[in-house]
Amino acid sequence: MTNTVRIIPLGGVGSVGKNMTAIEYEDTIVVIDCGLMFPEDEMVGVDLVLPDIRYLLERKDKVAAIVLTHGHEDHIGALPYLLPMLDVPVYGTPLTMGFVRAKLREHRLQNKAELHTVVPGEVTRLGPLSFEYIRVTHSIPDSVATAVHTPVGTILHTGDYKFDPTPVDGRTTDEAKLAELGKDGVLALLSDCVRVESPGWTPSEREVGEAFDRVFGQAQGRVIITTFASNISRVQQAITTGYRHGRVAAVVGRSMENNTTVASELGYFAVPDGALRPIDEVNSLPFRRALFITTGSQGEPNSVLSRIASGDHRQLQLEPGDTVIFSASPVPGNEEAVSRTINRLFKQGATVIYGRQELVHVSGHASVDELKRMITLTRPRFAVPLHGDYRHMALYARVAQEAGIPRERILIPDLGTVIEFDDRGHGAIVGQVPAGPLFVDGISVGEVDHVILRDRRMLSRDGIFVVVAALEQETGRVVAGPDILTRGFVDPRDARELLDGARERVRAVCEAHAHGLSDWSFLHQKIRDALGPYLYEMTGRRPMIMPLILEV
Amino acid sequence: MTNTVRIIPLGGVGSVGKNMTAIEYEDTIVVIDCGLMFPEDEMVGVDLVLPDIRYLLERKDKVAAIVLTHGHEDHIGALPYLLPMLDVPVYGTPLTMGFVRAKLREHRLQNKAELHTVVPGEVTRLGPLSFEYIRVTHSIPDSVATAVHTPVGTILHTGDYKFDPTPVDGRTTDEAKLAELGKDGVLALLSDCVRVESPGWTPSEREVGEAFDRVFGQAQGRVIITTFASNISRVQQAITTGYRHGRVAAVVGRSMENNTTVASELGYFAVPDGALRPIDEVNSLPFRRALFITTGSQGEPNSVLSRIASGDHRQLQLEPGDTVIFSASPVPGNEEAVSRTINRLFKQGATVIYGRQELVHVSGHASVDELKRMITLTRPRFAVPLHGDYRHMALYARVAQEAGIPRERILIPDLGTVIEFDDRGHGAIVGQVPAGPLFVDGISVGEVDHVILRDRRMLSRDGIFVVVAALEQETGRVVAGPDILTRGFVDPRDARELLDGARERVRAVCEAHAHGLSDWSFLHQKIRDALGPYLYEMTGRRPMIMPLILEV
Repeated sequence: MTNTVRIIPLGGVGSVGKNMTAIEYEDTIVVIDCGLMFPEDEMVGVDLVLPDIRYLLERKDKVAAIVLTHGHEDHIGALPYLLPMLDVPVYGTPLTMGFVRAKLREHRLQNKAELHTVVPGEVTRLGPLSFEYIRVTHSIPDSVATAVHTPVGTILHTGDYKFDPTPVDGRTTDEAKLAELGKDGVLALLSDCVRVESPGWTPSEREVGEAFDRVFGQAQGRVIITTFASNISRVQQAITTGYRHGRVAAVVGRSMENNTTVASELGYFAVPDGALRPIDEVNSLPFRRALFITTGSQGEPNSVLSRIASGDHRQLQLEPGDTVIFSASPVPGNEEAVSRTINRLFKQGATVIYGRQELVHVSGHASVDELKRMITLTRPRFAVPLHGDYRHMALYARVAQEAGIPRERILIPDLGTVIEFDDRGHGAIVGQVPAGPLFVDGISVGEVDHVILRDRRMLSRDGIFVVVAALEQETGRVVAGPDILTRGFVDPRDARELLDGARERVRAVCEAHAHGLSDWSFLHQKIRDALGPYLYEMTGRRPMIMPLILEV
Repeated sequence: MTNTVRIIPLGGVGSVGKNMTAIEYEDTIVVIDCGLMFPEDEMVGVDLVLPDIRYLLERKDKVAAIVLTHGHEDHIGALPYLLPMLDVPVYGTPLTMGFVRAKLREHRLQNKAELHTVVPGEVTRLGPLSFEYIRVTHSIPDSVATAVHTPVGTILHTGDYKFDPTPVDGRTTDEAKLAELGKDGVLALLSDCVRVESPGWTPSEREVGEAFDRVFGQAQGRVIITTFASNISRVQQAITTGYRHGRVAAVVGRSMENNTTVASELGYFAVPDGALRPIDEVNSLPFRRALFITTGSQGEPNSVLSRIASGDHRQLQLEPGDTVIFSASPVPGNEEAVSRTINRLFKQGATVIYGRQELVHVSGHASVDELKRMITLTRPRFAVPLHGDYRHMALYARVAQEAGIPRERILIPDLGTVIEFDDRGHGAIVGQVPAGPLFVDGISVGEVDHVILRDRRMLSRDGIFVVVAALEQETGRVVAGPDILTRGFVDPRDARELLDGARERVRAVCEAHAHGLSDWSFLHQKIRDALGPYLYEMTGRRPMIMPLILEV
């Protein structure tokens, strides 16, 4: 019998976010990453989206561990929800585990988790598998790729990466180790591909510092820089560059304050003494000496920056002459919200630096030439794109071919696709397991399904039209109502006639059909049939019609 | 007394779309453009957005005419709704009026409108004002700027424009005329500014033809090109380039078919004989000879391209080897929908050309250096940005300053801002008239207001929870119900306990408070107070709670 190892992407494929990959060998499954995703527009009212882990829960005793590549939400954010279900040890680098610990503490789970801190170069043995951590550069310090040594061969999972020659912490991607793995033989490369639409190389994080330098050189009033709360290096660069220009910084926004505290305690955040002070203190400085680093780069409605832009932040009111820097790109889907925020900031008189005006943001992901470099360094037999929409994976296939991988050895997975490699050098997609998005809404995980979301979309389109009447059980006579309750459809004050007409029609339907009925659903349908065309004819709209008959 | 002319933007300011500018001199008001806008995400369920013309309706006898700059929806689309209210003659160039006629015919208004076709160079006298039309290049043929000669001075309204040295129809912007106006003296330049975020010059439409040429040179299977239905020149270029490569084209999509018919009848659409054929005929050709031009470039759910991408277009099924070209940028707000369509097309095996891979789309608007060129040619005393979000107008102010206009003579309007110029060279913002968006939903114009939209957003967030009971009027005794109807909140099958608990609470509230009440609104509030915290505690969600009490 041949020996096989199976790779199953349970997240991070077909949409950017909620990363999770299962690696299965005989009776051992190890999960790499456990991320969440923020809902898309059509997932109405959903708070968070997690990977569906039915496949893992059905084989719970096989699951040996979760290994984390870095501390971003789309790689660790689902832990508070899924770790209690899986109940396995978690491995990650110091900063990653610092973020994990803070996150579990918020959910009061800190005592229930077995957490292991590992460092690049270290190897973790988990049954027949061993996991070797390799330093890579990304937009958060302490990111790693993982070489999974299996009896069938080595699987290299890149995590999120770029080849930044001058990262802020000076720790570059360990190319020597990658090349060594390549020399020893890599069976399959599982590669981040989300930036495959960009040619060439992603600029270094260092270049953002230089752009900050230029902006600080010209800024007259206060400077506000907004970026992702997890982008520790960016926050550090903003503060140190500002300090060189005589500015003292305050970090504003709970998530960003928490993250800088965690990073600082672990020694991953180094700014000059006195460069970072509380907001009140910075607020009392002359404008030319003040710098604020805030959350809200995605236009999130309740973020610090959105409140500043709307003029209702308690401590920070903009004045003409202030400069706001967007040190982040809008995540797909957030473009409108970001654009609204930028408009409002301009309207308050601020100079706003965003988009292509200055290099105040660079991606943390590899562009085309870096994706190729990863392939030429590691010389894998197979290439599998992860962490991308379908279009990213399709484009990656072209790039991998250009880097010398034959087309038949590039496997493009779907969510839940089972990829199997054997020890004779074969690899193929062999099946499909249940997978998909799991919605978190309020305190429930997974209870909100597609039916509920479809109803929410319908409710919002033309509103609702509730019709209530009380009928006498035996005679079918209407003894109260029909009454109508409507929202999001018409202004009831302007629509007296319309509503009177509807009531008349319902009454007629009841009189014609209610007598002797034992089940009201027939009558409900008759009411819908009568009202639907009437309301559409009168208004051109189709509210959701909901009849409810009470028996007296 | 001084002589004054007033400029009032009633649309096209603060958001891109629904362009409309009123020019008022003594007893004459002329309206330039009458456009619509497609709703933003937060305008839930709204079909279209029009300019609010209360200001014009209140002075209806002063309104002398509507003058159109070109045939795009955001400049002519509101005519079928607003022209019947204003009932004035309409002026525009031949292609623009061709589109207007088709549009009015669709709304059965063709006999009620007084339409005048004008040509560049021509002058229309409207009371004390005269309107002179000047050819400009844009992404639709027959676009004009308008020089409005008033007793106070000349106002130059650019319309949408770029300085394309090699437009498809060979008719360039009339720079000689613009320079002549500049020599004679322009009081105020009202300038398109929507592309002010792009440095340099916008590439020529000709370059798109060259990109098509490269793609056709490599394409093996069928080619599908999607663009805006109104982009006549683009459709023509696609067809003629395809024909040179031995391909025969079909135009698929009602609006695009209509537009090419109108343009063709008026002589604005020239393709070789036999290059354009019906879809069935093109479908029977070998793949290497087939070309389809379709709507759907914005990911519109029911468009031809979306149906092709989902595999449910009756006549067109994709096969690996086919190439799809997105010859359009996503309009802000459509990014997610476009990205979903691209993913699906890749998944069907097509090669998809989009974004920055090839210059398969260029903007129809002036970039920074062209905006400056307009200023240096026309040497206006005042500059006023139109057709932009607030950020575009703020950035335009900087550009205009760089081009030599002093900051105090750059006036940034809001919707409804009254800008007044007098014959002594003064200009200022002097007031504000009612203005804003007017929503079209179904067959009503303006009936859907912010309250209805807020309700729709609330309905969609956590769904609804309708509670109904019938009470005996005198005793307050519950004689039927309480019954519950819920949508978009929980799956009723999984939530029996939750619903039982809610019913119990409602019953308790009725028993405690209903006796002797003459007005049920007190009881409604009590029910909301009891259910809100209960439902939130159990689910973490806050559905819209709607009690309805029937009196028996």
